[in-house]
Amino acid sequence: MNAYLSDAQVPRGFSFSAVHAGLKRAKLDLGLVLSETPASAAALFTTNQVVAAPVIVSREHLRQSKGRMRAVIVNSANANCCTEKDGRPAARETASSLAKQIGEIDPSEVVVCSTGVIGGEFRVDKILAAIPALVKSRASDAVTFTQFARAIMTTDTRPKWAAAKCSIGGKQVRVLGCAKGSGMIHPNMATMLSFVVTDAEISPALLDRALRAVAASTYNSITVDGDSSTNDTVAILANGQSGAPAIRNGGAGFKTFCAALEKVCASLAYAIVEDGEGAQRVIDVEVRGATSDEAAKQIGQTIATSPLVKTAFAGADPNWGRILAAAGRSGVKFDYGRVDIWLAGMLVCKRGREHKFSERAASRKMQSKHVPVVIDLGTGKGKARILTCDMTQEYVHINASYRT
Amino acid sequence: MNAYLSDAQVPRGFSFSAVHAGLKRAKLDLGLVLSETPASAAALFTTNQVVAAPVIVSREHLRQSKGRMRAVIVNSANANCCTEKDGRPAARETASSLAKQIGEIDPSEVVVCSTGVIGGEFRVDKILAAIPALVKSRASDAVTFTQFARAIMTTDTRPKWAAAKCSIGGKQVRVLGCAKGSGMIHPNMATMLSFVVTDAEISPALLDRALRAVAASTYNSITVDGDSSTNDTVAILANGQSGAPAIRNGGAGFKTFCAALEKVCASLAYAIVEDGEGAQRVIDVEVRGATSDEAAKQIGQTIATSPLVKTAFAGADPNWGRILAAAGRSGVKFDYGRVDIWLAGMLVCKRGREHKFSERAASRKMQSKHVPVVIDLGTGKGKARILTCDMTQEYVHINASYRT
Repeated sequence: MNAYLSDAQVPRGFSFSAVHAGLKRAKLDLGLVLSETPASAAALFTTNQVVAAPVIVSREHLRQSKGRMRAVIVNSANANCCTEKDGRPAARETASSLAKQIGEIDPSEVVVCSTGVIGGEFRVDKILAAIPALVKSRASDAVTFTQFARAIMTTDTRPKWAAAKCSIGGKQVRVLGCAKGSGMIHPNMATMLSFVVTDAEISPALLDRALRAVAASTYNSITVDGDSSTNDTVAILANGQSGAPAIRNGGAGFKTFCAALEKVCASLAYAIVEDGEGAQRVIDVEVRGATSDEAAKQIGQTIATSPLVKTAFAGADPNWGRILAAAGRSGVKFDYGRVDIWLAGMLVCKRGREHKFSERAASRKMQSKHVPVVIDLGTGKGKARILTCDMTQEYVHINASYRT
Repeated sequence: MNAYLSDAQVPRGFSFSAVHAGLKRAKLDLGLVLSETPASAAALFTTNQVVAAPVIVSREHLRQSKGRMRAVIVNSANANCCTEKDGRPAARETASSLAKQIGEIDPSEVVVCSTGVIGGEFRVDKILAAIPALVKSRASDAVTFTQFARAIMTTDTRPKWAAAKCSIGGKQVRVLGCAKGSGMIHPNMATMLSFVVTDAEISPALLDRALRAVAASTYNSITVDGDSSTNDTVAILANGQSGAPAIRNGGAGFKTFCAALEKVCASLAYAIVEDGEGAQRVIDVEVRGATSDEAAKQIGQTIATSPLVKTAFAGADPNWGRILAAAGRSGVKFDYGRVDIWLAGMLVCKRGREHKFSERAASRKMQSKHVPVVIDLGTGKGKARILTCDMTQEYVHINASYRT
């Protein structure tokens, strides 16, 4: 999904950096995003009750700085969660050290993020030692941004980024984001790390509104394995350096900006599913005809997290009975005698019964990179869409040997 | 788990049979259990809303015959669920044809069960053609019972049976059961097929009570993949042929009988998990210190269905952070700063932080066939125990290629 990223797509007034601090054996493992000027910020965090130290600290910082932030620092390899010692001092030290090194910013203007293994020892000493090089090597070009996107990876097979632009008051505004997956991915802001920068001028409150609105249909509508992480964070910084007029509540600019932001987030959410651990294909589950959108979403999530459904897709097996059986145990009441199911565009179940179809043709269609599933409950107007991926032997291999 | 089964362990007054009807390519696929005299019967069925035709018909029969049944007929390979045509006439025809062939029983005294693929065409013609041979070849010995246990298998790697006896009024009473798994296994009576016979004398109502009581701690406390099937049925027949006095409500005999029944059901439930698709080991999840038993069960089930937890066990990886993260997203509130976790008998997490332990020793212990996990929330007295198995590449392989 990553198109070529040109320097012209990078929002004005940001710099990026990525170094190897030594948490991973050889790869980039520490990244920085810096706004040259104070930026509005908004963030969404994991809903897991078990919360990593950097999430606690970043929440505090956002509150303290009233949504005006300057920098995001992220390490991969270790989640700084449930470590031997309390992880909060380590996260605070990271922010302080970074602020000091940059010179003009306050620690409370730093978002701190970690991703990787839960538990173990968090080697903050390695991070602190790498901060000078991190700050020194920053640059504002597209390539450096993609290196940042690489530094935040864990089991991701590739960096993921997306860009969009829009025109506000006749001036071009840029939106650029990156994300990492790719296990412990589940709806409701328990999904991943994602960072978005924009040179739009917008208040923290309005930016927060935009992010929440967009997240519902993007980050909160994907699942890889139903497991939600302790570290998930989506953060956006908007520094106003585009020169475009400020985006106002209720103004036309807000809609335009949200559309550009949604384009970036939707693209990143899709990329996360596409790069789900061991994934061969994206399963695009659309539920229609439910009594409400919530009911549709609950059914969609049950289907999208069913190991039997996901393994059937791994084998390109048009075993629609597993889809219907998953819906049947979702906890949502429906009459299965009214259910129609389309698999890869083919009607396979009509009113709860098998509709004659060519298994061979269906299986061939299911071998593509994107397979749509439509389940129509035939009752109301509620609908939902959930993206997931197939579950392969590779998924098990990755997760059985993650730390070995 | 299957010990040698002797003829002396088989309850009196039952006969069994198993034939190849042609639904599977070559293996046994049609089985019969017959009580020579009317027997009290009780059954529990799937809670999935998508219900297979034989479940609907068997429920009707139990009602019509007021819990006095004679026979159970079971086919594997096709679930008779959501088939092209309405499956109920096929299930009813099966019961009628069996009753006619036996000669002295009513179709409503027959429990009909199917297991296998959902959808497709249900070849009841093959079943009807095989019924004469099925009825003719029945026998009352242990070997024939184990053949019945084999005929109900789908992806099970081995037949599963268990026997127990108890003394009631000085007379020996025998309890004998068998079960099939091994995918779509999840708590709350959406688990499997299991059939139990006993020569105890007990009323249908009391038998139902005994079965429900026992199921809670056995069949309803296991999970393989969180998916619940459309066909799951646990049925028990008690024909009183032991000569022991009738079991009365509140009498000592009831407790004794329940204990024997629990022994059989617990053994079968364990065997189902042990033979879970692709399983290498049983994970025995014990949750303690919760605010209630329900809360403990919810946490236990979230841990036991987490793909990340289950794949870590496949790799014998003491990645306890995944256990805590799964608990954290279970929906049950707790303070993770009070949580202790033991893995394979070793304390790995104390008060929500890593407790120094030898990863190597833990991994070695996790390589056994039975791995206990204890998670103590340190709050209340609620507790629960859930059995599950690890998730291996073989699980994916089986389910990606189930029908090919």
